[in-house]
Amino acid sequence: MRPQRKILIVVVDGLGDRAIRELDWKTPLQCANRPNLNWYAENGVNGLMDVIAPGVRPGSDTSHLAILGYDPYQVYTGRGPFEAAGIGLMGQKGDVAFRCNFATIDERGNIVDRRAGRIKQPETTELISSLSNLKIGDVEIIVKEATEHRAVLLLRGESLSPFVTDVDPHESSMIQECMPLVPEATKTAEIVNKFVEESRRILSTHPINLRRRKEGKPEANVILPRGAGTFPDIQSLEEKYGLSAACVAGVSLVKGICRICGMEVANVPGATGGIDTDMIAKAECVVRLLESKDLVLLNVKATDIASHDGDFRKKIEIIERVDSMIGYLRNSIPSETVVAILADHCSPIEVRDHSGDPVPVTIYCESGIRDTVEQFDEPSFLRGGLGRIRGKDLMPILLDKANRSKKFGA
Amino acid sequence: MRPQRKILIVVVDGLGDRAIRELDWKTPLQCANRPNLNWYAENGVNGLMDVIAPGVRPGSDTSHLAILGYDPYQVYTGRGPFEAAGIGLMGQKGDVAFRCNFATIDERGNIVDRRAGRIKQPETTELISSLSNLKIGDVEIIVKEATEHRAVLLLRGESLSPFVTDVDPHESSMIQECMPLVPEATKTAEIVNKFVEESRRILSTHPINLRRRKEGKPEANVILPRGAGTFPDIQSLEEKYGLSAACVAGVSLVKGICRICGMEVANVPGATGGIDTDMIAKAECVVRLLESKDLVLLNVKATDIASHDGDFRKKIEIIERVDSMIGYLRNSIPSETVVAILADHCSPIEVRDHSGDPVPVTIYCESGIRDTVEQFDEPSFLRGGLGRIRGKDLMPILLDKANRSKKFGA
Repeated sequence: MRPQRKILIVVVDGLGDRAIRELDWKTPLQCANRPNLNWYAENGVNGLMDVIAPGVRPGSDTSHLAILGYDPYQVYTGRGPFEAAGIGLMGQKGDVAFRCNFATIDERGNIVDRRAGRIKQPETTELISSLSNLKIGDVEIIVKEATEHRAVLLLRGESLSPFVTDVDPHESSMIQECMPLVPEATKTAEIVNKFVEESRRILSTHPINLRRRKEGKPEANVILPRGAGTFPDIQSLEEKYGLSAACVAGVSLVKGICRICGMEVANVPGATGGIDTDMIAKAECVVRLLESKDLVLLNVKATDIASHDGDFRKKIEIIERVDSMIGYLRNSIPSETVVAILADHCSPIEVRDHSGDPVPVTIYCESGIRDTVEQFDEPSFLRGGLGRIRGKDLMPILLDKANRSKKFGA
Repeated sequence: MRPQRKILIVVVDGLGDRAIRELDWKTPLQCANRPNLNWYAENGVNGLMDVIAPGVRPGSDTSHLAILGYDPYQVYTGRGPFEAAGIGLMGQKGDVAFRCNFATIDERGNIVDRRAGRIKQPETTELISSLSNLKIGDVEIIVKEATEHRAVLLLRGESLSPFVTDVDPHESSMIQECMPLVPEATKTAEIVNKFVEESRRILSTHPINLRRRKEGKPEANVILPRGAGTFPDIQSLEEKYGLSAACVAGVSLVKGICRICGMEVANVPGATGGIDTDMIAKAECVVRLLESKDLVLLNVKATDIASHDGDFRKKIEIIERVDSMIGYLRNSIPSETVVAILADHCSPIEVRDHSGDPVPVTIYCESGIRDTVEQFDEPSFLRGGLGRIRGKDLMPILLDKANRSKKFGA
């Protein structure tokens, strides 16, 4: 009886902002030409969403988990496993994963270059292969190269814990010893420290590094793990909601989260996760996926990157490109599709990082009740009909508008 | 990178009200001349706040705890310890404290005057000194005089409990026996009853009382404890949020709460906690404190007093004085300060006491998104862009606007 609809979630990363002095106290959204975003605002219901809770500053990982209906306080211990899953390295329950950098250190352990001259494939692939089949004590060590100077490390064995400190000091200073944050993590910290030592021993004499030394390039002579986390034991979206789902994203982290949530992860040539990403190629992929999937999540990272750079002109320009992509989607997907357009967190230009401000959200459904909002921007959304919701409320609302919600009671 | 801002919280005690027939169904706020409050409403974001939860009627103690980010259900057992801390008597974990009145009773235990003719210092100081170094069983008894006819009692010993009834019947009737509310409180109740008996024995023959009898004044011949509570074992604002903080308040209770939360408590001559308080002197102190502290809380009690008196004309007049104080602050603090103006609870004239109505709240930050509200009053705030938040959300929101929030995730 109930006509089931499909769901499209468009996450415009770091979209919301604060009033900017140089823009006469307007936001980048207010200054952008955005006819298609405005169309959704005018024809949808709009509001603000506290992705985690009011004032809480989300990471991109915890925010996407919340948007997909998971409780990040339950399933999130650290970013490592999501980065690992992002490059296709799916761990098992109990595995502890880290994100890593190839870095350059001197003899005293001083970090000379945290990114080893932004070394990349195929050099990193060759370096990583020298670390394959490592075992420290009873713990299996799995390392895999990621984009550019990045890699992931996965520990598999008994009694491992994610509650250890980072080896990477996140700046050019001394390499840090991995320390347990709880007594149960002592073994894990020891394994990590031994792994770092082992990576140093093996990489420092690796032919790739001997050649880089000759060429005057920084050697990738150590691997620095950070962001330890366990693979969460969570239900897939299929199990949780009965949804077949897919994601289109350029950023490895978002791909990893979606993969862990059981979503199909599309590979779109030109989807770089950067400023130069091909948004129309991503939108085309979304349109194709919506033919067979119940839900598609599309993430565009470029807005967030402009915010991290503190460049409001670039942010406005990217919003206008996002708007064109939204226009393409609007013209290409079935009109009965339920569409949510939102940010995973605000990234105000003044902050150059995420903030805890509530994010703008619009929900479009052909049979939805419209409010009086006519423009897609932060001040307009303050008086939106959706009010102020939480990230965890989004999926239930979308499922219900798609006529896919279960009845509680009889 | 993030420009850290300072935070000012102005608590206008009992500010919110209900529609009053005599004011043509307007509220005192609507009837007051309030250009400075309106300026903050117009330039801030406004809304309603359920200090505890919708419809829950907060005390001034539980409300201030919530406003400062603590869960009153976790840390609050009774008012005693906050009153004790308010006069500088800081207890330890396990101590049970009571607020007390000096009272006049007749031979049969009938209360003739609950305030012993509003006796005050130095007489109360002399009376209290006759009770120093008391010990009942293994329990140490500490008593200290407070403002006017008030005092505090602190019990220190093993196995004490705050779950006992009040000795003070809160009206002119018979003195009540202290009763345990749980079996574990039997010892505490016995100690309290023995203390009351002991105070009666010692005070009734005290030279001060013999003199008062001669002068025809009510004797302060007993101490009546009420509001038992344990000292909470809580993190200071410094530990919890990394904030150095101070408070400016006339009322002892608010001072005590702030002191227990690790805040510096300013002493402002003229800050009486009454109708006659010197609001500009308090504002001057706030301006000075903001130079060195990250957060300052300012409490003005006078509005609440007018409400308890059921005097709407006086409440309007006091709101206008508060408005002048707000104007002084606006002109004197750095423009980048994050400012929250709110009530700790509503005190409607018709109730002559606290109510569970949501309180008006405005949050100003130079880069904040503004809503369309132009006036600082209850009806205008119903359509404010902040929507409806909880007391516990306030600190996270302010910390984030001040760029002092921590990221959850990466």
